[in-house]
Amino acid sequence: MKRNPNMTQLKANYLFPEINSRKKQFLAKNPDASIISLGIGDTTEPIPQSIVQVLEEASSNLGMQKTYSGYGPEQGIQTLRQKIAQKIYTNQVNADEVFVSDGAKCDIGRLQMLFGSDISIAVQDPAYPVYIEGSLIQGVTEVISMPCCPENDFFPDLTTVPRTDLIYICSPNNPTGAVATKSQLEELVKFASNNRSIIIFDAAYANYIQDPSLPKSIFEIEGAREVAIEIGSFSKLAGFTGVRLGWTVIPKELKYDDGSSVRADWNRITSTIFNGASNIAQIGGCAVFEESGFEEIKSLTKYYLDNASIIKEALENLGHEVFGGVNAPYLWVRFKGQKSWDVFQNFLEQLHIVTTPGSGFGEAGEGYVRFTAFGHRENILEAVERLKAGTFSNCCIAR
Amino acid sequence: MKRNPNMTQLKANYLFPEINSRKKQFLAKNPDASIISLGIGDTTEPIPQSIVQVLEEASSNLGMQKTYSGYGPEQGIQTLRQKIAQKIYTNQVNADEVFVSDGAKCDIGRLQMLFGSDISIAVQDPAYPVYIEGSLIQGVTEVISMPCCPENDFFPDLTTVPRTDLIYICSPNNPTGAVATKSQLEELVKFASNNRSIIIFDAAYANYIQDPSLPKSIFEIEGAREVAIEIGSFSKLAGFTGVRLGWTVIPKELKYDDGSSVRADWNRITSTIFNGASNIAQIGGCAVFEESGFEEIKSLTKYYLDNASIIKEALENLGHEVFGGVNAPYLWVRFKGQKSWDVFQNFLEQLHIVTTPGSGFGEAGEGYVRFTAFGHRENILEAVERLKAGTFSNCCIAR
Repeated sequence: MKRNPNMTQLKANYLFPEINSRKKQFLAKNPDASIISLGIGDTTEPIPQSIVQVLEEASSNLGMQKTYSGYGPEQGIQTLRQKIAQKIYTNQVNADEVFVSDGAKCDIGRLQMLFGSDISIAVQDPAYPVYIEGSLIQGVTEVISMPCCPENDFFPDLTTVPRTDLIYICSPNNPTGAVATKSQLEELVKFASNNRSIIIFDAAYANYIQDPSLPKSIFEIEGAREVAIEIGSFSKLAGFTGVRLGWTVIPKELKYDDGSSVRADWNRITSTIFNGASNIAQIGGCAVFEESGFEEIKSLTKYYLDNASIIKEALENLGHEVFGGVNAPYLWVRFKGQKSWDVFQNFLEQLHIVTTPGSGFGEAGEGYVRFTAFGHRENILEAVERLKAGTFSNCCIAR
Repeated sequence: MKRNPNMTQLKANYLFPEINSRKKQFLAKNPDASIISLGIGDTTEPIPQSIVQVLEEASSNLGMQKTYSGYGPEQGIQTLRQKIAQKIYTNQVNADEVFVSDGAKCDIGRLQMLFGSDISIAVQDPAYPVYIEGSLIQGVTEVISMPCCPENDFFPDLTTVPRTDLIYICSPNNPTGAVATKSQLEELVKFASNNRSIIIFDAAYANYIQDPSLPKSIFEIEGAREVAIEIGSFSKLAGFTGVRLGWTVIPKELKYDDGSSVRADWNRITSTIFNGASNIAQIGGCAVFEESGFEEIKSLTKYYLDNASIIKEALENLGHEVFGGVNAPYLWVRFKGQKSWDVFQNFLEQLHIVTTPGSGFGEAGEGYVRFTAFGHRENILEAVERLKAGTFSNCCIAR
């Protein structure tokens, strides 16, 4: 049979496998190198004890007749949907608008299936690659790029953006670390409402927002329930990157032009080609919202934010131009006049530090690399030492 | 924005939520009814102890710095891929052809994304609804139905089937319980090879095959590596329905007309819109293949097969026409001249037994209901008592 033509639209490799492959190549030549990975945004600190205990209990319960359970609802167990609605959204959304999933990345893929191929999308540039790549897999051809750079505070200038069916927005942003302000999001909601567009709001890093004036959810904005879908995640909230747990909120007010419910179609897709997140993960997810769990994950968040602040200070002291890293776990560092992959390669070869080349997130990311704040503190400090001492910052990179 | 036209092709409800809703309606009117569910094929017996212990350990390890892990490879942890290749396929496939997932249903959805909309498919009738419904969501319009009935031993008569790009085959079959013979699968592989079609072979119930002459995998058939993809699952193998773990095998020899590798595109999709099955589930999956785990799951399989045999005998003694239930956990019972949903409703209202109406699996399923062998033994025995004593089998159903 013939190959799906949509697949030919993709570059050969998804960004992170490519980084991994370059790292491996380097290690093959330099087997003794001690590499510090500030590349992929992967949590490094253990899951807090009160949550781990519940994961253990949930596992143990599967071994006993009285407590064994099989398939749960595809939409997620009711308690967890309720807790997300209460604790994350202070009941601004209802439990039956929360759909629990095996993670934000997977939900983005299913959302793309929900909307199909015959749509136009607008995507921030730079952006998490899955927005565009998943859309290309679905056969979407109309992709509008919304450049986000220091000149517009890394938020799209909506006066220059044409109408599209979907608008992908991520805040706190991956990769730039920029956090959208209330007035920016108000403009966005108004823009979507005027254009009858749907916003896909990726709030996977919302827990890093410490400044109370910054919205942690699009649903804090008036009118958002008519125009927005929000994606959330336990990955960076509770160290669940490997455990796999996330959610998507689709409000009942969100309708297609024909008046039919987006939530109803999502429910249909969820029950047809998904079968619920792992019950162990979901029960563990409930523990995240218990008093002790909630306190513990706040410390976890603070730990990574402190990392961000340490890296930011070091890079700035070296004279680098650093964005993000406040209310966000990512730092976006500009190397004017240079290619991202060259900077990546220099960091790797000279300081044995893995970063993420900005150009992997889009054209507007060229000349930047992303540092993640996810890492053991001692590695962050060691990376900072290398940055300070390294030949790299002294000679090889024009700043 | 406008609704995805593909979504309008679906019936309002996926089969199992509809069954659930009818059951709830009945319970609302008859709150004291003690319902036995032989409807959805959901495991009821605990996960064997040696496997549960490993699930607990995996959970516990996430709480300690030394043993914490974040993202794993999207394709699955290497040990599990190797164990599946060894123990399920006796190394007839390679570990890097095995892609671990969060379950067969989800993999079917992603496979449909892999092949896109511009394809033709052939599907057994009756069949697991996800083959057609997931395809409709993707926008597939050319769907060929392959009736499977007593007259053709519930295997498609390939001489009457036109060429399609994909051919979905499930053995042991859900819902008919029929198991394809070696010669049937040889014909199928030849047919696919001549037509340059790809077989999607759903082997989610392969562990129920006890007869050594029946193939447990399509890859036991010569030439299958050039034409087939196989889907497997831990759900009915180890009681992982809620834990969520499965796999898909795509051999390296499987190519598109342009010579490009299907496996390479699958790898790209897997890494782009999937992020691996839960690490806890995967580590638990490894324990399934340890000596003790493997013995324990054999007992579990036998337990459900014994259930199947008890139900089969009871129904046959009552004069019903029963197919399946041997080497398979499903029984397919014919009620000539009746509508499946009427039979379903009668079983529900008169005997308080939930079945699955055959027509929910396709037109050729009309007049049948499916019984599942998944249930506690005491419930199976109670169901059998109800069948024997019930007004239902005596008067209300013409047999």
